[in-house]
Amino acid sequence: MAAADYDTGLDRNPANHQPLTPLLFLERAAAVFPDHLAVVHGALRRPYRELRERCVRLASALARRGIGRGDTVAAILPNIPEMLECHYGVPMAGAVLNTINTRLDADTIAYILDHGEAKAVVVDREFVPLLRVALSLTRRESPLVVEVEDAEAPEAARANTMGGLAYEALLAEGDPDWAWPLPRDEWDAITLNYTSGTTGRPKGVVYHHRGAHLLAVGNVLSSGMGRQPVYLWTLPMFHCNGWCFPWTVCAVAGTHVCLRAVRGPAMWSLMAEHGVTHMCGAPVVMATLLDTPAAEKRPLPRQVQFVVAGAPPPEAVLAAMREAGFAVLHVYGLTEVYGPAVVNEWHREWDALPRPDQARLMARQGVRYLALEGLEVMDPASMRPVPADGATLGEVMMRGNVVMKGYLKDREATERAFAGGWFHTGDLAVRHPDGYIQLKDRSKDIIISGGENISSIEVEDTLYRHPAVALAAVVAKPDAKWGEVPCAFVELKPGARATEQELIAFCRERLAGFKTPKQVVFTELPRTSTGKIQKHVLRARVREG
Amino acid sequence: MAAADYDTGLDRNPANHQPLTPLLFLERAAAVFPDHLAVVHGALRRPYRELRERCVRLASALARRGIGRGDTVAAILPNIPEMLECHYGVPMAGAVLNTINTRLDADTIAYILDHGEAKAVVVDREFVPLLRVALSLTRRESPLVVEVEDAEAPEAARANTMGGLAYEALLAEGDPDWAWPLPRDEWDAITLNYTSGTTGRPKGVVYHHRGAHLLAVGNVLSSGMGRQPVYLWTLPMFHCNGWCFPWTVCAVAGTHVCLRAVRGPAMWSLMAEHGVTHMCGAPVVMATLLDTPAAEKRPLPRQVQFVVAGAPPPEAVLAAMREAGFAVLHVYGLTEVYGPAVVNEWHREWDALPRPDQARLMARQGVRYLALEGLEVMDPASMRPVPADGATLGEVMMRGNVVMKGYLKDREATERAFAGGWFHTGDLAVRHPDGYIQLKDRSKDIIISGGENISSIEVEDTLYRHPAVALAAVVAKPDAKWGEVPCAFVELKPGARATEQELIAFCRERLAGFKTPKQVVFTELPRTSTGKIQKHVLRARVREG
Repeated sequence: MAAADYDTGLDRNPANHQPLTPLLFLERAAAVFPDHLAVVHGALRRPYRELRERCVRLASALARRGIGRGDTVAAILPNIPEMLECHYGVPMAGAVLNTINTRLDADTIAYILDHGEAKAVVVDREFVPLLRVALSLTRRESPLVVEVEDAEAPEAARANTMGGLAYEALLAEGDPDWAWPLPRDEWDAITLNYTSGTTGRPKGVVYHHRGAHLLAVGNVLSSGMGRQPVYLWTLPMFHCNGWCFPWTVCAVAGTHVCLRAVRGPAMWSLMAEHGVTHMCGAPVVMATLLDTPAAEKRPLPRQVQFVVAGAPPPEAVLAAMREAGFAVLHVYGLTEVYGPAVVNEWHREWDALPRPDQARLMARQGVRYLALEGLEVMDPASMRPVPADGATLGEVMMRGNVVMKGYLKDREATERAFAGGWFHTGDLAVRHPDGYIQLKDRSKDIIISGGENISSIEVEDTLYRHPAVALAAVVAKPDAKWGEVPCAFVELKPGARATEQELIAFCRERLAGFKTPKQVVFTELPRTSTGKIQKHVLRARVREG
Repeated sequence: MAAADYDTGLDRNPANHQPLTPLLFLERAAAVFPDHLAVVHGALRRPYRELRERCVRLASALARRGIGRGDTVAAILPNIPEMLECHYGVPMAGAVLNTINTRLDADTIAYILDHGEAKAVVVDREFVPLLRVALSLTRRESPLVVEVEDAEAPEAARANTMGGLAYEALLAEGDPDWAWPLPRDEWDAITLNYTSGTTGRPKGVVYHHRGAHLLAVGNVLSSGMGRQPVYLWTLPMFHCNGWCFPWTVCAVAGTHVCLRAVRGPAMWSLMAEHGVTHMCGAPVVMATLLDTPAAEKRPLPRQVQFVVAGAPPPEAVLAAMREAGFAVLHVYGLTEVYGPAVVNEWHREWDALPRPDQARLMARQGVRYLALEGLEVMDPASMRPVPADGATLGEVMMRGNVVMKGYLKDREATERAFAGGWFHTGDLAVRHPDGYIQLKDRSKDIIISGGENISSIEVEDTLYRHPAVALAAVVAKPDAKWGEVPCAFVELKPGARATEQELIAFCRERLAGFKTPKQVVFTELPRTSTGKIQKHVLRARVREG
């Protein structure tokens, strides 16, 4: 018997097929909950009806100025309502949103504006001086500058201007009833995110509508988010588009609580006032929360889900967070996978374990998001998975629908990243017998000493066990005899004391000799805007002696 | 300036693109939560590891017997574990699952087996006699018969056999480690569902992997389902693949509590024993729950979300359900849209309204699922949306990624269903000023009397307000003068009494004269397997006098 014919006369057509896009999430929320609070910012309150209207105005105004399909619109903005609006308004015009880290130097920003071919830049007045310098360094025709004057910005910052078009004036040009066009294809680019590579120029990671839709919905499932959450914007939206949460929150018609700068007292009062249910960030945000003076903390009206990435939350921090009324979820990802694509799925029975065991289990990065179809730890030479023994190092590889289109105008890097049909993360990990992966090092961070591989994370973990250590970073130091030796940079806790000899001895007791740092430097550690320690800065310092 | 090139060198490749499919939901649940309880059935308990193993065995065994891409495998099964396994094992083999309503007559089943070209039929022994007759009526080569002997089946039913292959023997032929192939394309068919049309032969609705994935995840969002729910199988899986919940529950690694037959005491004890969180069904299931003798009810360990479709829940039922510990969510859909694609999104502020107002708001079918991109009420002649005035009737139209591929081997019906780029539901509705739609009638159910349209639902609603009425259905009765007049069929509450004259007078007080039933028949109402009243049976009775 032949198979039944499930293809003939059963084609895609306008009734049964559309490009997936997260842009319709806002349309739905505005249609169903027009009066529900969509945006909070300082004294500002905007219902969904208004958020949608402003986004469509923005799209329409851009289109009227000739900005459309495949055009890049850059944004240099903190977590303010206009940044959220750009996540809808720019792609509604068919254009591609390029959010730029506000803490970058002017030279890098100039490179990004040139490379991304931005036709317009939306800038908060605080960053106008930075943009002015950046534009003086660009080699292309100057883009349209759109200035945002944020009522919550410091007064001095609000006075800055380079004579650009006011954001509100741009909105006034737009038609709130414009029937914005769906993307032609769900593979169309929606945003562009430059990775802060450790060496060389940043690479432009291109996201598409399909992936943004799927990861945004994946966030709902991973964080067990119910209907109409209240989301506090502690994670920068310029970082992987805020892990796609600008779209996630609208998918479930939640409230965006904006936050211009991550400060302890502001976070506590916003959580208390608005009944925040979810927030994301690096461990440094948890530290900022916990270190807020008691007088400035507020009782939380309900449990807050804190989604953390960037480093595993240490045991003491976990315990303190729980006591303070938070549930912590550990996720892991990279710019190339739209933010988090791996999640430490918690097993209920683990709640009964002793605290150190819980912290050990939560330190693992975990398992794939439902939206990421493949996650492996492989030997990159053979492309074979490593044994799930919790010991054999391999490179984390990912594949699926939430992996980027590729790097803009960099076919070679794209092909290298996708060699063998998997995205090579560059992160080294083990796979535990239960399938959970655990990062052991960024491959660039590995220290090779006398032919032995040293995981800098392992050395750092040891240093963290010392009661005086607040932050630690270990990098390779060139060594005539061994090739490389570990060198530790340490920030001590306020009021705590420890000597170099003491810390080296502490490590030697706990680590193989070759893994023990040969030098300890006490210093403030350089961090990225998202709280990651910048090891390349430390490496440069080591090289320069 | 030209647009940046967001296409060149940024193509789909194995690392960044895969067909969407719900089949990977099971793989993930089994990998992450291998020991979590996946299936409960009577005394049977199966963890995810085992559920997955059995599904892959089934797929492998089918493949070894030459059943693969595009082949149809039919199932005549109640809500037992084997039915759930078919939802994974059959499409893992590349084949298409055709679940058949167990309450159909042999002639219709024969038609379905012929039309769907089933190569195998998985049948519960209870339905072996039915299948035997059906196969004697088919015109094609007989399919492979696979018999399931369910320990929870009545003893007499378990003794039936037609000498088919035992399901467990088929599983034993399979390789639990088989690397089953992903669908070649997410547009590939995954299941086939025959609609029980009111006239003519049933039509074969074809679902694809992409739509099944999106609707299954959409269910999580619509029902606000958290991680690891406990789902009670009161909705037949042969009905729109159980609204895609076989895949939804695995997407969030929940527990499937099987139920061979919907009986009040069994439902209460399963809810109590397993801490059920979610269940679905027609209003008749709610009635069965509420009508269970008090001695056989059990205290619920937590609130149960009841997702109801088929008819709006009446005020008294809503109140009784709440009192009993249920939250009720009203959804609406059709076989052609994978089950529910419209949801009565509840606004929190409605909780403060008086009970009758809440019931009135909940009676509306609502708004589109996040996964359904378009929902309109249109004049089918002009294809223009009706005004959102809560009064103008139009036809409900849908479009988007959870609309079927089409009707199998029926290009004409498919083209008619998709005319103008929208799926024509055949249901008549109004759109309220807040955008929520409300069904007023199936277009086939409308009664046209003296040129006036009468909504049979409106007349039924009036009858329901009479304290003696348990169930009411109103159909058109041919009339020499008026063309048609309303004729009511009524089931009275146990012990209640009312005369025909009394009910007609009751309606006349509340309805326009032409809408008042001219005849009332007291009878038990014929229902489909899913609890819908079979108006076509009543119409036939009226025609026959």
